[in-house]
Amino acid sequence: MGNWLNDVKWDEQGLVPAIAQDHQSGRVLMMAWMNREALLLTVKEQRAIYYSRSRQQLWRKGESSGHVQKLHEVRLDCDADVIVLQVEQIGGIACHTGRESCFYRVYDNDAWRTVDEVIKDPKDIY
Amino acid sequence: MGNWLNDVKWDEQGLVPAIAQDHQSGRVLMMAWMNREALLLTVKEQRAIYYSRSRQQLWRKGESSGHVQKLHEVRLDCDADVIVLQVEQIGGIACHTGRESCFYRVYDNDAWRTVDEVIKDPKDIY
Repeated sequence: MGNWLNDVKWDEQGLVPAIAQDHQSGRVLMMAWMNREALLLTVKEQRAIYYSRSRQQLWRKGESSGHVQKLHEVRLDCDADVIVLQVEQIGGIACHTGRESCFYRVYDNDAWRTVDEVIKDPKDIY
Repeated sequence: MGNWLNDVKWDEQGLVPAIAQDHQSGRVLMMAWMNREALLLTVKEQRAIYYSRSRQQLWRKGESSGHVQKLHEVRLDCDADVIVLQVEQIGGIACHTGRESCFYRVYDNDAWRTVDEVIKDPKDIY
């Protein structure tokens, strides 16, 4: 056990980017960071667990919102420094703004235009 | 012009992660980095242009391989520090190993198992 964790090329802070993708629609939901423990626990508990750089602690996605990401698959890229998670997004909301995906702004004519609706008011989530 | 570039939260090195996704299949092809110039040129030239951290210069994806990524859409996340590109992958190969996607290894029983085939031998690409 643990050899697969050594295969990952952790950066100077001991982190790698982890992209969460809806396992059915393929929608990219968010990107966050993982340290060694986060990746190990993600696999163990079969749910996405990230490392919050701002809070400097493990971030059990969905802990307060209920919007847990159930794990379906973990992939590693050719350089071994990026992870993709296939997940089932409980509640259909990944973003703290109450949207399905954190990527709700599209580049349009030299501006970022919000194109996705808020599914649930954040006040009703947290 | 340029205000939208200021909306992006560039990291200490002036970079943001950019995720390239096949605009039709939704397959995540790769993740690389962009600086301000790379993002500007990506939008201008309507093809993915990254910043190579190892070579410390702009990386016009497909320049030597021909595997250009034609741009369909650019999105920014809620924290304004991650980009998703919807692209058309010319040649159907994004990875330098000759595979469609850089994410060809799946976590399986404490190991990373290669599950995707090589479409074209890298020797015949570069």
